[in-house]
Amino acid sequence: MFRESIQKLVRRLDGGVAGVVMGFDGIAIDSYVRDGQTGHVADIVTASMEFGHLVGQLRGASERLELGALREVTIKTDKLTVVMLLLTKDYFLACGILPTGNVGKARYLVRMAAPQIRAELLQ
Amino acid sequence: MFRESIQKLVRRLDGGVAGVVMGFDGIAIDSYVRDGQTGHVADIVTASMEFGHLVGQLRGASERLELGALREVTIKTDKLTVVMLLLTKDYFLACGILPTGNVGKARYLVRMAAPQIRAELLQ
Repeated sequence: MFRESIQKLVRRLDGGVAGVVMGFDGIAIDSYVRDGQTGHVADIVTASMEFGHLVGQLRGASERLELGALREVTIKTDKLTVVMLLLTKDYFLACGILPTGNVGKARYLVRMAAPQIRAELLQ
Repeated sequence: MFRESIQKLVRRLDGGVAGVVMGFDGIAIDSYVRDGQTGHVADIVTASMEFGHLVGQLRGASERLELGALREVTIKTDKLTVVMLLLTKDYFLACGILPTGNVGKARYLVRMAAPQIRAELLQ
């Protein structure tokens, strides 16, 4: 359903390894892993399940703090940077890039990809 | 102790409102709020306490996922973007910027400020 949008996003990204559309319940709707990027670094689905649970809590914290809605979370580790954009109250889009990749460009491309995916989710 | 470093960082940032050096136990070591930026948007200490607790959990998740050490987390809400950099196992540096600010520059300046603060923490 969303695989084409995710694939296009990941392939446009230098260092892009994988992407996923996931619910805050941890269920992946669709995902894409770039060829040759299988292995622990590219296990975006597992990472998004773990991180997504905590992003759900960050969302609650943002509201309690009266900072408005949570929009994006970027998590940078030694081996992978994960850019997560909240699509709707139930779903988010996550994209994993290697440390050599351009995080600014990843955030830009994730934002560009979001409206179409959001529109399909809300159909 | 770190106020001068934090102040310099925040003042160099367009849209920079506040910064803090905080322990994962939620205790602020030092903080700075830019003039005219008091109010809920600038309450970086409270936001960092709430977000810091969850960043501590993200650190654990990163290790469980074999993604190596957690380095940075950027949290973008409607009213404030918070860039958090892990300084040591016990402390992090957080900087709050307005939505109009440049997040890429904030991440760069936070990284530039970190080594000196880290060195002082480890003294």
